[in-house]
Amino acid sequence: MALKTPEQYEESLRKMKLKVYVQGELVENPVDHPIIRPSLNSVKKTYELAQIPEYQELMTAESHLNGERVNRFCHLHQNTDDLVKKVKMQRLLGQKTAACFQRCVGMDAINAVDSVTFEMDEKLGTDYHKRFTKFLERMQEEDWTVDGAMTDPKGDRSLPPHKQADPDMYVRVVEKRADGIVVRGAKAHQTGAINSHWILVMPTIAMGKDDADYAVSFAAPADAEGVFYIYGRQSCDTRKLEGVEIDVGNKQFGGHEALMVFENVFIPWEYVFMCGEYEFSGSLVERFAGYHRQSYGGCKVGVGDVLIGAAALAAEYNGVAKASHIKDKLIEMVHLNESLYSCGIACSAEGQKTASGNYIIDLLLANVCKQNITRLPYEIARLAEDVAGGLMVTLPSEHDLRHPEIGKIVEKYFKGVDSIPMEDRMRILRLVENLTLGTAAVGYRTESMHGAGSPQAQRVMIARQGDLGSKKELAKEIAGIKKKNQH
Amino acid sequence: MALKTPEQYEESLRKMKLKVYVQGELVENPVDHPIIRPSLNSVKKTYELAQIPEYQELMTAESHLNGERVNRFCHLHQNTDDLVKKVKMQRLLGQKTAACFQRCVGMDAINAVDSVTFEMDEKLGTDYHKRFTKFLERMQEEDWTVDGAMTDPKGDRSLPPHKQADPDMYVRVVEKRADGIVVRGAKAHQTGAINSHWILVMPTIAMGKDDADYAVSFAAPADAEGVFYIYGRQSCDTRKLEGVEIDVGNKQFGGHEALMVFENVFIPWEYVFMCGEYEFSGSLVERFAGYHRQSYGGCKVGVGDVLIGAAALAAEYNGVAKASHIKDKLIEMVHLNESLYSCGIACSAEGQKTASGNYIIDLLLANVCKQNITRLPYEIARLAEDVAGGLMVTLPSEHDLRHPEIGKIVEKYFKGVDSIPMEDRMRILRLVENLTLGTAAVGYRTESMHGAGSPQAQRVMIARQGDLGSKKELAKEIAGIKKKNQH
Amino acid sequence: MALKTPEQYEESLRKMKLKVYVQGELVENPVDHPIIRPSLNSVKKTYELAQIPEYQELMTAESHLNGERVNRFCHLHQNTDDLVKKVKMQRLLGQKTAACFQRCVGMDAINAVDSVTFEMDEKLGTDYHKRFTKFLERMQEEDWTVDGAMTDPKGDRSLPPHKQADPDMYVRVVEKRADGIVVRGAKAHQTGAINSHWILVMPTIAMGKDDADYAVSFAAPADAEGVFYIYGRQSCDTRKLEGVEIDVGNKQFGGHEALMVFENVFIPWEYVFMCGEYEFSGSLVERFAGYHRQSYGGCKVGVGDVLIGAAALAAEYNGVAKASHIKDKLIEMVHLNESLYSCGIACSAEGQKTASGNYIIDLLLANVCKQNITRLPYEIARLAEDVAGGLMVTLPSEHDLRHPEIGKIVEKYFKGVDSIPMEDRMRILRLVENLTLGTAAVGYRTESMHGAGSPQAQRVMIARQGDLGSKKELAKEIAGIKKKNQH
Amino acid sequence: MALKTPEQYEESLRKMKLKVYVQGELVENPVDHPIIRPSLNSVKKTYELAQIPEYQELMTAESHLNGERVNRFCHLHQNTDDLVKKVKMQRLLGQKTAACFQRCVGMDAINAVDSVTFEMDEKLGTDYHKRFTKFLERMQEEDWTVDGAMTDPKGDRSLPPHKQADPDMYVRVVEKRADGIVVRGAKAHQTGAINSHWILVMPTIAMGKDDADYAVSFAAPADAEGVFYIYGRQSCDTRKLEGVEIDVGNKQFGGHEALMVFENVFIPWEYVFMCGEYEFSGSLVERFAGYHRQSYGGCKVGVGDVLIGAAALAAEYNGVAKASHIKDKLIEMVHLNESLYSCGIACSAEGQKTASGNYIIDLLLANVCKQNITRLPYEIARLAEDVAGGLMVTLPSEHDLRHPEIGKIVEKYFKGVDSIPMEDRMRILRLVENLTLGTAAVGYRTESMHGAGSPQAQRVMIARQGDLGSKKELAKEIAGIKKKNQH
Repeated sequence: MALKTPEQYEESLRKMKLKVYVQGELVENPVDHPIIRPSLNSVKKTYELAQIPEYQELMTAESHLNGERVNRFCHLHQNTDDLVKKVKMQRLLGQKTAACFQRCVGMDAINAVDSVTFEMDEKLGTDYHKRFTKFLERMQEEDWTVDGAMTDPKGDRSLPPHKQADPDMYVRVVEKRADGIVVRGAKAHQTGAINSHWILVMPTIAMGKDDADYAVSFAAPADAEGVFYIYGRQSCDTRKLEGVEIDVGNKQFGGHEALMVFENVFIPWEYVFMCGEYEFSGSLVERFAGYHRQSYGGCKVGVGDVLIGAAALAAEYNGVAKASHIKDKLIEMVHLNESLYSCGIACSAEGQKTASGNYIIDLLLANVCKQNITRLPYEIARLAEDVAGGLMVTLPSEHDLRHPEIGKIVEKYFKGVDSIPMEDRMRILRLVENLTLGTAAVGYRTESMHGAGSPQAQRVMIARQGDLGSKKELAKEIAGIKKKNQH
Repeated sequence: MALKTPEQYEESLRKMKLKVYVQGELVENPVDHPIIRPSLNSVKKTYELAQIPEYQELMTAESHLNGERVNRFCHLHQNTDDLVKKVKMQRLLGQKTAACFQRCVGMDAINAVDSVTFEMDEKLGTDYHKRFTKFLERMQEEDWTVDGAMTDPKGDRSLPPHKQADPDMYVRVVEKRADGIVVRGAKAHQTGAINSHWILVMPTIAMGKDDADYAVSFAAPADAEGVFYIYGRQSCDTRKLEGVEIDVGNKQFGGHEALMVFENVFIPWEYVFMCGEYEFSGSLVERFAGYHRQSYGGCKVGVGDVLIGAAALAAEYNGVAKASHIKDKLIEMVHLNESLYSCGIACSAEGQKTASGNYIIDLLLANVCKQNITRLPYEIARLAEDVAGGLMVTLPSEHDLRHPEIGKIVEKYFKGVDSIPMEDRMRILRLVENLTLGTAAVGYRTESMHGAGSPQAQRVMIARQGDLGSKKELAKEIAGIKKKNQH
Repeated sequence: MALKTPEQYEESLRKMKLKVYVQGELVENPVDHPIIRPSLNSVKKTYELAQIPEYQELMTAESHLNGERVNRFCHLHQNTDDLVKKVKMQRLLGQKTAACFQRCVGMDAINAVDSVTFEMDEKLGTDYHKRFTKFLERMQEEDWTVDGAMTDPKGDRSLPPHKQADPDMYVRVVEKRADGIVVRGAKAHQTGAINSHWILVMPTIAMGKDDADYAVSFAAPADAEGVFYIYGRQSCDTRKLEGVEIDVGNKQFGGHEALMVFENVFIPWEYVFMCGEYEFSGSLVERFAGYHRQSYGGCKVGVGDVLIGAAALAAEYNGVAKASHIKDKLIEMVHLNESLYSCGIACSAEGQKTASGNYIIDLLLANVCKQNITRLPYEIARLAEDVAGGLMVTLPSEHDLRHPEIGKIVEKYFKGVDSIPMEDRMRILRLVENLTLGTAAVGYRTESMHGAGSPQAQRVMIARQGDLGSKKELAKEIAGIKKKNQH
Repeated sequence: MALKTPEQYEESLRKMKLKVYVQGELVENPVDHPIIRPSLNSVKKTYELAQIPEYQELMTAESHLNGERVNRFCHLHQNTDDLVKKVKMQRLLGQKTAACFQRCVGMDAINAVDSVTFEMDEKLGTDYHKRFTKFLERMQEEDWTVDGAMTDPKGDRSLPPHKQADPDMYVRVVEKRADGIVVRGAKAHQTGAINSHWILVMPTIAMGKDDADYAVSFAAPADAEGVFYIYGRQSCDTRKLEGVEIDVGNKQFGGHEALMVFENVFIPWEYVFMCGEYEFSGSLVERFAGYHRQSYGGCKVGVGDVLIGAAALAAEYNGVAKASHIKDKLIEMVHLNESLYSCGIACSAEGQKTASGNYIIDLLLANVCKQNITRLPYEIARLAEDVAGGLMVTLPSEHDLRHPEIGKIVEKYFKGVDSIPMEDRMRILRLVENLTLGTAAVGYRTESMHGAGSPQAQRVMIARQGDLGSKKELAKEIAGIKKKNQH
């Protein structure tokens, strides 16, 4: 059975033995932890929507391995239509969760590892691709959520892995044995780590010969011996502990990042997909990053849809929906959001087949997509704060609203247009707060900036892919500059 | 024979009897007029490239009418692949001409008229679509350049056609006869009018019952009795009369706009495609504008490629190519240019079949595309001026360079890096001037702003297509606002 | 004694009987409440710096009433030099608190009320100005913090006060008695309300005859009978309850807003400064808003200085301080921040004397200043998030760092350059988080947007003050358009 | 007599023997040359307005040398009020000419040379300042227009002066004689050179010991033996030769730049103000550039006023003045323009006394001012093109309008609202064209970019003046980072 129900997904997580620290405490039961839970709900939504006929074309795909229907998050893109549908699925999930639903890192990782292992084998005679394909079969069969893990802590960023004061600042092989390898180190900012069944580790930068021990890629169960997690804290995270609903902004959904630590973890060879082939680490990074930069052209657009809707409602509840400047700002928000979507669609539609047979996005356009993601959501958020009004940061708490005495005062004075209950206005303003300053702002703003590589990483790629050389030839031709003068 | 050679195109224009005024004079021979000629060369390029095997996939298509290879400018888009190729063809031509090649208005017009006449016939029982298809057959067969003509002078923009002080401010039917109609009025800003074989007229706004006489669409030979043209002047146009080469910036290519006047022109019924059906004028405008807004996601990107190349060369010739801020500005120019291209590709890839069978772009994304075109080329131009340096506006003239005495002084003091002839530097700077301030800036800047509708026109469409309603529902769902409270 | 020590200030607040609700509970002792306290510390800083010789030129001024040295927050600006020093004092305090220090609303209120009451008296023969001057004398003598209170809840913003479903949506006079008036209603978003000795209430919009009961201005002790407060909650506010230091970002300073409610509060006539003179409400709003829009050109610039410094340190601790793109982003942040400062200085230097003798800023430039404040801090914040790196939103909590076991892991893996303790890196990243997403983001972002009037309010003023008429005359003169054609 | 009338100014120029090449021809009489003349008119306006009582406070000042009333362009700033009035005078002249009035370079040069020569003398025991003061006395007495000349051709910008392939790429001393020096080289982009009485030459970069021969500053008559000029061509320059009025856009006023060549020019010692003291060249550049960066906060704002007025009129003539988006765009233009003005005012109000006694602007804010000038006028121009409509680049020529036959057609179809003559609409659109694409765009756009130093030059200064060090200390203080950790 290739598609888990949402209940089965939750159940499968309950059976795992993840070692997770949240705010200085080892968590007994991550699945029900109030700070973690909303992020699990987001992942669960990827299982739920896959069950609903209306969404199946986007949420599922036919496996190229066995022809079965699998969740698209477990699928290798077989054509540009798959790439486009990936983006549409992500927009849909962004709309339904208004949060980071986390499962993309695994999808982007398997698509990157597939073609790179194929090319390694072609060139080096290794058999990584076969191993990987076997792993993929099980992943599809079990409908696993896999955490693609790339970002090392990096220490002093001006130094390569082997020059770091602490050799563990990048994940590395500390021992090679007959039956497998032992790895050590950590991966930072791991999206959705606590909600995953497996981990798929990749190196984080192009490496040289001296960094060979750091050129390592492998899969491991998320609760493997020696793996543990320290949960990252988010703006407003503890509101989820207050026993309230409205103040949380988005009660049901969220995202998370964690530090994933490998304390001498043993990995059998069958799950090792790169081990010392440093000359391929750059390609793997470039492709994973490329896929993931495409992803943001879907998911952030979906979250943007919710934010635009929330701002429009806030304006309506304030009684200013008809003001021309309000209408114009909402148009601008839509315009910016659809500009991002255009980038997501374009790099997908212009995708190309790799040697291994799956499809990769147009790298230049995917980097352009992500570069816009580091800018436009900030402007959309700014406009949302403008349209929503200052009340979103000065509202009393939900406890005040529920207070037997002053609750009436709160209701009285924070009422907007007469036809709308004050509570609805509060709910919408708290949602805008959540997306622009609160837990979801972590995903909508800062992750838009740094996820899938910081802005400068995209600029480096744009420089590399932008082909200034041929542009200069075009200009010479028009300007009548003779060939002999070229250089 | 469905594909004209460039020579045949030029010859065919020579045979026409266009009545054209340029700067107060009736032109004898438009084809060889030095101010007009570069614009003809641009259109001619659309014939030339169609002959070159390397470009045929983009430049030509298989006619859905008879299966013959036709120039893509005469083709109805049969699928999204055709829509995408259209954009790529436009980028190619922008790269090769660094100017407006003008022929798009006809292509966009036939694609809009096709589906709208089909729907008119379906609803009203008219036979416009059949007439139109016959016209299209001849257009493909003769490889005509057709001037899609939409923009009326409009007079006082706060008034509808029938309320204008002068009834001719919008093209109108002044007489209906057994054999045809007589029309009067003018179309302004007509791109490429002087280089066209035929004119395809469309109404310019959604109209009401009182404007029925203005709801008219028809085709006519560009040199029909009663049609004449007044040529629009462009920045730096008369440099083309100076007998120089470098100062023109782009010696070979250009674009033009003209006022096209109809002095009681007779149109036989077979060329009339709308006559009083005011309720369809809005759709026709919306579709033509939609296609044309897509177009800019191709052509302006190609021109942008040349400008980026020119700026990069200017930096190189100045000896500053390695400065990090210069490299960063060139990256930004590429990023912005590819953002525009992404919009062009996305609205194409997301196109859909119309009732008549041809394909139309995604209207929301096409409007988003054009809205970005009203902004980003201005920033690209600003960056080009930054990178190129101030010399582009203080250089002496080509006559100074050619002067027996001071020519040496010019060469001496305007030399940049030693390895590059000063003349090459001058050529590149004049090209940057041409694209940012000169004749081509008319196309790259102001036409980017107002062509295919001014920015506000796109905002109106984005508002209409942006579907705020469903975004509000998404937000309510996340915020936990109950259905009963909706309104 | 006209200058209180910081200790005297705190002591004086302890003696008051403010009725404050925080998150559903009536607070016993606001002064020591952990959520409120940092905001008190910010106000206290205005007393502390006034005691330090180095800062006295900025922090204090010579009273025009009695020649004594008074805190500048209690001073009426006597010349443009005072206006400029006000902005510099605000920048200083922004630098020292990295928060909203709240006392400006009172200073801006007294300066607005002074000239408007003078003009009322001149025109209407009332004696409001004399009453006000007496109040001001005591304010200076006692070195009071006064809460200028303008913003009414407003209900349905499309309706004027007297048309609201609930007549209390704007503060109003419910009874006029021989000895005074009774008022009812509320003021929202009241900055620093809980840290103030007195309240100075003003109307919030230009009003018509039917709104006369709402045209009311008066002063009252902050703990007057019938006044109570509901504290607004801020992003990350409850981190201050966690007993931690680092995670708070800015342990010592903060700001706050509250709803201030008037339940039939009696105001003796000597403290009433407007009562029914609706035709002056517009001027009062315009002037208070003008002064307050100037203020932001000082305080937000000071906070910006801290954020720029924090971003620069984060880059240094990450080992990327020398990357050209990092340096360039820091330059851009400085550029934007100083652009804001330029606006603050310019509207001050161009100030003018009012009829009452105090000085008012240039209204056009003050509105331009605030309009920029609604934009540039957002871009500065975006750049800070870029420069700081994603770790600022994925860092574990301080409890993790202090944990006996995993604390070492946190230290190990979140170390940046070797020479800097990991804790310092954490502190700086938490400060960036605080200013861009946390409690201080409320002040640095959303308050920059809506404080002193939302962006559109400034645009209305810019339209009114921008004098398009004379600009049109300039253009006609240059274009050679004759006088007779004017209209 | 210290103030020349405009007629005397023109007469004085007629008496000079300038050697000027325009488009390959040696000009007999520059004063009446149709391409040069409008630029002379702009300079003449600085004499004319100084005669009008209403403007005298701005246009003139009391000489600190002899107490006489002198034109402010010949004045050393004696206080911050002078600095502010300088900016206001420049805005006024920008409003009256809608062009570059050129005389600022001399004013900025004398103010820079004054303090630097004073400091040279103080440190080195030279007597440059005395010489300079004598020159200044005559300049004030004769009311000279002086051309401050700084920018060398520079050749390969990656090399210092003494490493250039051609040693003349920077102006240099080729001979030192008992009675003076002989100089050689050229100054590029010389604003207003042809309309000046004298030249004041300064070095263009900070220099090292090997560049000592290039560290030279001196004054010379503009028609000194061995000096000649090659006129720079501007966009649309030859429209001034067409015998038309409207198409020129701004018939009366303009600006110009020229290459100024020194062919072994002898300079008596009394006019030499620096000769080999390379260690002071950097200060001189920094101060001149600082003053000139301030200047742009005045002149470009004045030109912006005209452009805003023209756009507003165009909208009115089009019948769209009441559309909310049009009003909003005009507000934005005003906002941006006044933001620039704020920067000009702020760096002036914050000026400080130099060792020699004159006043210098705040260097950080002056650089911030200019940096904004490299951006905001481009956005104002873009908005002007938006508001004006596309007709500005497709209008027929004035010859068409005057044509006996088609003139009526032009009038008919290009009429906007009924009450406005079509010619007026044409005039305004041509003015917008002039300012955004034509001769004046050279000044309003490209000169805004590169005049007084290219954008990167300001960023270098902002980095140097922005004091990141103290900002980092502020952040450490707030973040609780202990002193011992500092570095």
